[in-house]
Amino acid sequence: MELNGVADLPEIRPGDDIAALVADRAALEPGDVLTVASTIVSKAEGRTADLKDYPVSGRAREIADRLESVAGEEKDPRFAQAIIEESSELLIDCPFLLAETRFGHICPNAGIDRSNVPDHDLLLLPKRPTESAERIRSGLAERGLEDVAVVVTDTCGRPFRHGQTGVAIGWAGMPASRDWRGERDRDGHELGVTVQSVVDELAAAANLVTGEGDGGTPAVVVRDWDFGTHEGSDELFRSVDDDLVRQALRTWRVDG
Amino acid sequence: MELNGVADLPEIRPGDDIAALVADRAALEPGDVLTVASTIVSKAEGRTADLKDYPVSGRAREIADRLESVAGEEKDPRFAQAIIEESSELLIDCPFLLAETRFGHICPNAGIDRSNVPDHDLLLLPKRPTESAERIRSGLAERGLEDVAVVVTDTCGRPFRHGQTGVAIGWAGMPASRDWRGERDRDGHELGVTVQSVVDELAAAANLVTGEGDGGTPAVVVRDWDFGTHEGSDELFRSVDDDLVRQALRTWRVDG
Ligand SMILES: Nc1nc2c(ncn2[C@@H]2O[C@H](COP(=O)(O)OP(=O)(O)O)[C@@H](O)[C@H]2O)c(=O)[nH]1
Ligand SMILES: Nc1nc2c(ncn2[C@@H]2O[C@H](COP(=O)(O)OP(=O)(O)O)[C@@H](O)[C@H]2O)c(=O)[nH]1
Ligand SMILES: [Mn+2]
Ligand SMILES: [Mn+2]
Ligand SMILES: [Mn+2]
Ligand SMILES: [Mn+2]
Repeated sequence: MELNGVADLPEIRPGDDIAALVADRAALEPGDVLTVASTIVSKAEGRTADLKDYPVSGRAREIADRLESVAGEEKDPRFAQAIIEESSELLIDCPFLLAETRFGHICPNAGIDRSNVPDHDLLLLPKRPTESAERIRSGLAERGLEDVAVVVTDTCGRPFRHGQTGVAIGWAGMPASRDWRGERDRDGHELGVTVQSVVDELAAAANLVTGEGDGGTPAVVVRDWDFGTHEGSDELFRSVDDDLVRQALRTWRVDG
Repeated sequence: MELNGVADLPEIRPGDDIAALVADRAALEPGDVLTVASTIVSKAEGRTADLKDYPVSGRAREIADRLESVAGEEKDPRFAQAIIEESSELLIDCPFLLAETRFGHICPNAGIDRSNVPDHDLLLLPKRPTESAERIRSGLAERGLEDVAVVVTDTCGRPFRHGQTGVAIGWAGMPASRDWRGERDRDGHELGVTVQSVVDELAAAANLVTGEGDGGTPAVVVRDWDFGTHEGSDELFRSVDDDLVRQALRTWRVDG
């Protein structure tokens, strides 16, 4: 398996065609996986915003006040408002905001970035990243680059472990997971691990190449990796019903 | 960046020298990262066990009874006992066991596997996986293979997202994370994402090659990936104090 960053992508602007920009710079082959950082997908989709676009609701004011008193530094209630508007649920509202985006992904601040955003205050995540991935995949196919899977990624923290990793937020041309159920281990026993989230593993792998800084390499080509002959599943984001941690967070509130 | 599975590793037995077995089969170069699945590290370290080795405590009986009544199927209290003995804390004890291992890693069943274990009931995680990684790294150096970083991996589920991914549980020869604090984005702003857990990303990448089944490829060589000139950190496992989810789980208990 080989991963190579797509070199020389320009600064992405609203309306830019990511498939065209990548097709001009990378010799994609059938079976490749192309990962694309959500940052540039958002830029291409015009998902920039400014704090002044978010008139502050009572809830946002309350959240910002509480964050301020816990953090001991000023918090802009308009940022809380932006997060509320991008979310379907706030799982934690103090001492930081952990939100479920409208498309089901759970991450701090609903994934709204304040890095790598020129001329605006905020960069929102793509509205429907799986549709973004599908559009890029079709755009490649239109240019004769057939059978390339596309994964839209973000960088995001997690419980239990320090640090952030690359994760998938949208995908097209492959299932999210390899389902090993019913398959056997080396001794003929049924497997303990049943569902391998390969889109997240591809996003994590690509993030090693992409990095978080000014590298300018938001797209990575993964070659010679094969999904194999497994069942697939497209369930990636847990709902409350099958997530004990989400259930626990609903009954809990930080002091202060 | 390139990843290649180490071909033709035999079935690993207690006392086997993983460094020697890999050195004979892979042309490692300075700067490479070698990932090794904990399964074979555990086998080499004799970390197999049998259910009969675990006389059942009152707590284990209680846990198994409750799991039984919730799941509607028989649960072996000796397995609960094994998990208790491998753990420093149970974060969830129903409807499944989420444990913190003695070395700080949080995962279902304290990472005890029932797949890929010949002749025994259970395979425990390595006792101190970072020491295991250090031993493999020294073993390679003794064979003239200097400057190879080693990451010991496991496959493990997580909150918020379905499926399992490869994660790091021990590492040697490199820091766990790239610390981007103080670095700048493309527009000169300080970065939002500050700590990139590269050992987890390497483990996830390698798991795409390793798989979960009878592939027989527990070791993967990562070539042409560079940590770069960043600060590093070796903190990977969160303590209760800096993990709101752990705090929430302490105040919560499933009904039933
Ligand atoms: N060429 C190019 N690179 C960009 C652009 N915006 C961000 N990047 C790069 O994309 C990579 C990922 O950026 P990051 O902010 O971590 O994206 P995220 O993980 O999707 O939030 C970094 O290497 C950035 O330097 C852009 O408009 N053009
Ligand atoms: N060659 C070899 N491969 C093994 C052995 N035990 C497990 N494997 C392979 O190692 C890989 C990882 O196995 P898995 O049970 O998922 O390990 P874990 O993720 O560390 O729990 C799979 O490809 C297995 O087929 C062994 O003793 N020898
Ligand atoms: Mn982001
Ligand atoms: Mn990033
Ligand atoms: Mn395991
Ligand atoms: Mn595994």
